[in-house]
Amino acid sequence: MQKINLALLGFGVVGQAVYELLSKNATRIAKITGFHPVIKKILVRDLKKKRKISIDKGFLTTDFNEILSDEEIKIVCELMGGLEPSEEYILKSLHQGKAVITANKALLSERGEKIFTKLNQRRGYLGFEASVGGGIPVIKTIRESLIGNKIHRIVGIVNGTTNYILTQMQERKMDFAKALRLAQEKGYAEADPSLDLKGIDSAHKISLLASLAFNFFVPYDWVYVEGIEKIQLEDLEFANQFGYVVKLLAMAQRVKGKLEVRVHPTLIPEKHILTSVRLNYNAFLIEGDFVGNILLHGLGAGGYPTASAVVSDIVDAIKYIASGQNGLTIYPLYEKERKKEFRPIEECIFRYYFRFQALDKPGVLSKISGILGRHGISIASVVQIGRHRGKGAVPIVMLTHETKEKAVRVALKEIEKLEVVQGETVMLRLFEEKG
Amino acid sequence: MQKINLALLGFGVVGQAVYELLSKNATRIAKITGFHPVIKKILVRDLKKKRKISIDKGFLTTDFNEILSDEEIKIVCELMGGLEPSEEYILKSLHQGKAVITANKALLSERGEKIFTKLNQRRGYLGFEASVGGGIPVIKTIRESLIGNKIHRIVGIVNGTTNYILTQMQERKMDFAKALRLAQEKGYAEADPSLDLKGIDSAHKISLLASLAFNFFVPYDWVYVEGIEKIQLEDLEFANQFGYVVKLLAMAQRVKGKLEVRVHPTLIPEKHILTSVRLNYNAFLIEGDFVGNILLHGLGAGGYPTASAVVSDIVDAIKYIASGQNGLTIYPLYEKERKKEFRPIEECIFRYYFRFQALDKPGVLSKISGILGRHGISIASVVQIGRHRGKGAVPIVMLTHETKEKAVRVALKEIEKLEVVQGETVMLRLFEEKG
Repeated sequence: MQKINLALLGFGVVGQAVYELLSKNATRIAKITGFHPVIKKILVRDLKKKRKISIDKGFLTTDFNEILSDEEIKIVCELMGGLEPSEEYILKSLHQGKAVITANKALLSERGEKIFTKLNQRRGYLGFEASVGGGIPVIKTIRESLIGNKIHRIVGIVNGTTNYILTQMQERKMDFAKALRLAQEKGYAEADPSLDLKGIDSAHKISLLASLAFNFFVPYDWVYVEGIEKIQLEDLEFANQFGYVVKLLAMAQRVKGKLEVRVHPTLIPEKHILTSVRLNYNAFLIEGDFVGNILLHGLGAGGYPTASAVVSDIVDAIKYIASGQNGLTIYPLYEKERKKEFRPIEECIFRYYFRFQALDKPGVLSKISGILGRHGISIASVVQIGRHRGKGAVPIVMLTHETKEKAVRVALKEIEKLEVVQGETVMLRLFEEKG
Repeated sequence: MQKINLALLGFGVVGQAVYELLSKNATRIAKITGFHPVIKKILVRDLKKKRKISIDKGFLTTDFNEILSDEEIKIVCELMGGLEPSEEYILKSLHQGKAVITANKALLSERGEKIFTKLNQRRGYLGFEASVGGGIPVIKTIRESLIGNKIHRIVGIVNGTTNYILTQMQERKMDFAKALRLAQEKGYAEADPSLDLKGIDSAHKISLLASLAFNFFVPYDWVYVEGIEKIQLEDLEFANQFGYVVKLLAMAQRVKGKLEVRVHPTLIPEKHILTSVRLNYNAFLIEGDFVGNILLHGLGAGGYPTASAVVSDIVDAIKYIASGQNGLTIYPLYEKERKKEFRPIEECIFRYYFRFQALDKPGVLSKISGILGRHGISIASVVQIGRHRGKGAVPIVMLTHETKEKAVRVALKEIEKLEVVQGETVMLRLFEEKG
């Protein structure tokens, strides 16, 4: 049985889970593949830190060069996160001819240009299944299983924190603050949850998936992003009345020759399978010209699911090494000029959900609908509930027919200037079954 | 750009879809992989047959040996179906050192022993993604993405015909015969649909998936099978009343050290994601010790989705060839003695749904529940509706607590001997969230 030595950079939740997985299942992997993966070194910041897993101190090091210069180490798994020094370690390891595995979506999405270019220049292996969707094999599915397809679109619920919060609000009539606290108690939200709530984590992920689906590097800052911080329980309830469920969707799609890549809360028809994606689960709906629609669903985060993905990359890296580094691992190329092919959000077409807070006075609805009409925005349904007569603002909620975003933005600004309308309008977009 | 020549055996729905896919997308594949797949020969039975696709007659042949002896043909795609001559052609192609791809689940499930043994003896590539789940990448997910996991169970809705029929019955209150006719009109059911309705197609698929998940060859005849032919609309409606949806489930699982592999109609709690699998869609729920639960959902049949899977195998075969045939493609080994590790259906434990047809007379329920009680079967819920008083049989429907199948079979025989009970009892099993 041939041994393959690897190193872990970082020994937090994911690093320890990879260690546990290999302790438990490496013999099975060896039996199936013929190669036995062995962890030789682990890079840590603090040798003396107490860890859940007790490990011989001889395995630990604080010096990355000890790993880099060790020719017996063929595979380096970067599980530290953050941009620096992760980028430096990955580039140096690739340069040294080591296979690299990373779970670092932020790094690949923000700095992938340099890394992918290096990979395309000289042969090398970079596995990043764990960077998106935890244990869900979305990267392999796009790159390998759907390679025969022209991909039309990817629609994902790609962030467990926000999906957990929205599910609790929706199903248990909780307000946002309470649902967030619950998510934090359960360990589904960080102490500082802003990367998740603002949609930034989702944007990192969809930019990477878009790069794979469309075969050129789509940097993070091309993605239009809105988070869920402004979503109120009231809006989820109105959406329900209209037959919709609100989810934070990340979407990359080709519509009439142009690409749209964006993240925002979205109303999904309640019969659609994406509404069955509950709690901290993630899902990816991928549409290809031959395969039709494929949905992948599972736990998108957590040490154990992420370790499952890291180890599938370890086995692929072993195959790559065993084949004499002859794999066909082509990576998305950066093409700055492709930005022209992007459709900016203002040019996108949606159906919309609006909630206005208006004084309960005669003529309000006519004023609002008048402005919408002048901008060519046609109303499909409307609900106005006149409670608290004379006691301040009441909600006017409507769904529109298809409209260009640009028109909506101008109309809403005008409406917000009306004296009878108070505060900011809640504006959400609807998911359409077809592009 | 390097060309790779391939041959298709069979040019029916799937063969023509593979041809179409490569005509449309081969340049894209070549750009990504560096290799251009080219169809050099197609084996057909009748050179003159009219086909949807017009093709130069020079590509067609009726002589398999012309393909076998052509050293330029590196990949053979068997898309004919049936046991003979498919088996012969696959074995000969492998022997000749060609990579082989097949969509033939029946062959692999019934005769896989010989084929997998041959593959393990001498290196070779056999791709069979298209044999289960159409375009859904379930084979690659089990073999590659979940390789780090010990798999606890696979639960699948793996047959589109039966799922379409059950969905129509359930959602549109159609009887079985009408739903079957509709499925035939839509092309979702064959003229002779018995392989699907009896659960045999599902059994072929789950036996193959079980082989991959448990790493030894599980032949078709180890699978316990019940179809949907006896399901009546009435049963779907009663199941609904109890909060369940009926699906034909294929299941392979490890429970307390023993394996259970079976196919039967099953009551699934209506909140479970498997109940969102509608119409002709398929889904696979795979549970691993690290990844948790992964669900894959999509079109499980049809020319285009199947072609998508065949082409993903073609690209993997190209990688295998490009790497100097150094892939790590280990196949399930046949181990006859593992049959001892199987739990026969009589020893399995379920909750049950029963529908008795009983005369509407005093004491009937007490007689039935008396017999159940004597066999240790405890009733959880019961519905008895006394319509048509004095006019023949009425249904008595119940759900039980957990019971061993053996006890149920004996009890039902005894109940069916009661004079007040008419005809055969409908007995369905419930799906439990945990094995």
